[in-house]
Amino acid sequence: MSNEKIPYKIYLEESEMPKQWYNVRADMKKKPAPMLNPATLKPVTAEELCHVFCDELVAQELDDTSPYIDIPEEIQNFYKMYRPSPLVRAYCLEKALDTPAKIYYKFEGNNTSGSHKLNSAIAQAYYAKKQGLKGVTTETGAGQWGTALSMACSYFGLDCQVYMVKVSYEQKPFRREVMRTYGANVTPSPSMDTAVGRKINAEFPNTNGSLGCAISEAVEAATSQEGYRYVLGSVLSQVLLHQSVIGLESKIAMDKYGIKPDIIIGCAGGGSNLGGLISPFMGEKLRGEADYRFIAVEPASCPSLTRGVYAYDFCDTGAVCPLQKMYTLGSSFMPSPNHAGGLRYHGMSAILSELYDQKLMEAVSVEQTAVFEAATRFARVEGILPAPESSHAIKAAIDEALKCKETGEEKTILFGLTGTGYFDMYAYEKFNDGKMTDYIPTDADIKASTDKLPKV
Amino acid sequence: MSNEKIPYKIYLEESEMPKQWYNVRADMKKKPAPMLNPATLKPVTAEELCHVFCDELVAQELDDTSPYIDIPEEIQNFYKMYRPSPLVRAYCLEKALDTPAKIYYKFEGNNTSGSHKLNSAIAQAYYAKKQGLKGVTTETGAGQWGTALSMACSYFGLDCQVYMVKVSYEQKPFRREVMRTYGANVTPSPSMDTAVGRKINAEFPNTNGSLGCAISEAVEAATSQEGYRYVLGSVLSQVLLHQSVIGLESKIAMDKYGIKPDIIIGCAGGGSNLGGLISPFMGEKLRGEADYRFIAVEPASCPSLTRGVYAYDFCDTGAVCPLQKMYTLGSSFMPSPNHAGGLRYHGMSAILSELYDQKLMEAVSVEQTAVFEAATRFARVEGILPAPESSHAIKAAIDEALKCKETGEEKTILFGLTGTGYFDMYAYEKFNDGKMTDYIPTDADIKASTDKLPKV
Repeated sequence: MSNEKIPYKIYLEESEMPKQWYNVRADMKKKPAPMLNPATLKPVTAEELCHVFCDELVAQELDDTSPYIDIPEEIQNFYKMYRPSPLVRAYCLEKALDTPAKIYYKFEGNNTSGSHKLNSAIAQAYYAKKQGLKGVTTETGAGQWGTALSMACSYFGLDCQVYMVKVSYEQKPFRREVMRTYGANVTPSPSMDTAVGRKINAEFPNTNGSLGCAISEAVEAATSQEGYRYVLGSVLSQVLLHQSVIGLESKIAMDKYGIKPDIIIGCAGGGSNLGGLISPFMGEKLRGEADYRFIAVEPASCPSLTRGVYAYDFCDTGAVCPLQKMYTLGSSFMPSPNHAGGLRYHGMSAILSELYDQKLMEAVSVEQTAVFEAATRFARVEGILPAPESSHAIKAAIDEALKCKETGEEKTILFGLTGTGYFDMYAYEKFNDGKMTDYIPTDADIKASTDKLPKV
Repeated sequence: MSNEKIPYKIYLEESEMPKQWYNVRADMKKKPAPMLNPATLKPVTAEELCHVFCDELVAQELDDTSPYIDIPEEIQNFYKMYRPSPLVRAYCLEKALDTPAKIYYKFEGNNTSGSHKLNSAIAQAYYAKKQGLKGVTTETGAGQWGTALSMACSYFGLDCQVYMVKVSYEQKPFRREVMRTYGANVTPSPSMDTAVGRKINAEFPNTNGSLGCAISEAVEAATSQEGYRYVLGSVLSQVLLHQSVIGLESKIAMDKYGIKPDIIIGCAGGGSNLGGLISPFMGEKLRGEADYRFIAVEPASCPSLTRGVYAYDFCDTGAVCPLQKMYTLGSSFMPSPNHAGGLRYHGMSAILSELYDQKLMEAVSVEQTAVFEAATRFARVEGILPAPESSHAIKAAIDEALKCKETGEEKTILFGLTGTGYFDMYAYEKFNDGKMTDYIPTDADIKASTDKLPKV
């Protein structure tokens, strides 16, 4: 097939869709550090984790040796409702940039959750259902994960309790309504429903909430209700496992047409999309079968990889979760209020942190007005209105394509277009009105929060 | 291929995509009545129409004999960016309804405009560009058409001036921002920029605006600026021609798998989606090659087919457009303010009106709370959050599938899922809160506006 003209969009047949997830940890010689119990500072056991997470998901979280894990048929069937996602050749963007580079993007936004988050949400809901649970709890910031989980729970008839960062709850009423339409219960966080929420409200009466705080509330809600567990949409290794479907589909589609990417780019908040996109390619690199450049793109206002420290830290503000070794800005770090969209988590997936530390992956940070410029440029030629998060990857892809224009190199660039921006029009309005600003934390800002890292 | 298991989604290959539009008028023995010049009451000439519309589009509007019209390559290329749209087998909905019916839907919502409107927008923008125009003007109600046209104009570098019904402009700021992101100029209508707008504002100082009024303003803006023409997203025969791509793709996909629909259902406002979806199937029926049931579904609050009269009427409130023979509630008819979403135009496409009058198509009307119940039911099992407009078709499809459950018939149902509801969450919120109401106009309401029909 390699001599055919590459279509605008490559869709796999159902029969070509992956039947197994790929676990990149299996091919890492040096594995990510284990999660620690904050009380004992010893590696957490499956038994301890099973109080918080579903049994099967705990097994996946701790499994760093099995390279492939079967995708249950029920999940495969759900995937068929909105997958395969298209691998798009950005012909119009290439033309607009006048670059010799060949640009591809894997577009994960064509589903009602508006992002790739559904790939892991349906898996987590499935295992919760299989375990006979009544429901699950979670947190959501920008709302993509909460929407995805609401959809997944509605499909399996599970109760879904979402703690939504207060400022998002108020600024994004429509995201909230999508979740409610799927039957979810949405509570602004910090709430007065949990001990940790009441404590945070007492300490910071006018707080806008944060992801770290909503996580603490959701974990408390899960562990204090019979038949509930907590689920998380990013950061965890199990999430990267489920998201490997993005990279696997991309690779099958590219192999089919004899395309080999030189550079693979993804936006990075907690790491779910980037980790999923690069996994099978990174596997080849780890096994010495091929080489690729991987670039993580993060916001300059929340730069965990490029300016954080690699250390054990809490995953949440309330310090109820296990400690994870990761690139982190400290769990008390808060991105500036002018930061729009997601990618605002203080730490990075343990897998990606370790790969970055081993110099197998690069990272860059970009400022938000430049990100929205790239988003608008992309929207006008490629038709798709991208999510602010995804636009970080667009910005870096455009930068790489423009370098090719200078050097004349015909590099092949693949980036992850994680989602659509339909619920982010406040931010676009700010940009359209010329009122968007940038903010880069000072070294002192970052030192203030990394100084508070737990002593391990 | 007919013995294969039908996949969840059927995507055509690029090479299988239609290269010609189908003009159903060519196969109609009795053609739709010609448009009349309101001053002379004689059929409008191409020359008269060319002051308002682009030359090539006028030719298409008046051509009721050519069965096929080539899709220019530039438009085919744009179609490749977001088409083919998937033909989806609604396995999960069938299971939830426990029906022996086989349900398919053609999903047109997976593009940034969120609906099928882009199919005609890109064609109209292309012909405007080809004619060397500076820009186009239009009106938009719910905002789907305005968004689609903004995208199309941005692609071809045309200026785009959108008159947006004032109540939508205020209630749907995010739609407005999507248009602005694509570079369009959006003005709430009635405005003070046009003579007709100033007149309407003087007469009705607190008016919320209407589609008919926004059309009048857009036409005036087009005819009073050098290098501008007016474009319209529905009702016109040229629009149904462009939208035939929906039906053509559906038919190619179904033929590929040996599927023959018994019933074809679409929502009907001005008729653009329904007309496009049914065209090639109706062609077979007109030529005596096959038989199908066609069902137009309209809101009970704006029932032009089921309760209107078949007569010449104005297309706009300001009476600046030609007269069209159509099923109409009268150009002064206004749907009740509690009506959510689109499908609020007073008349129906001349082609569909004539087909309905010849009893080649049926029509039903449905109330909006029942429509939102169907929408929610559909969203929870099929994953897609539908637009309120599209949900009219869902409601009718579910009703037909439930009839099959009673009779045990294994009918094949195809319906058009025209778009997504991401910008309609106000309406969903009302429904979720149990505050949505229905309204059916009285006979006196309808008589009041049909009494004002022009005397022809």
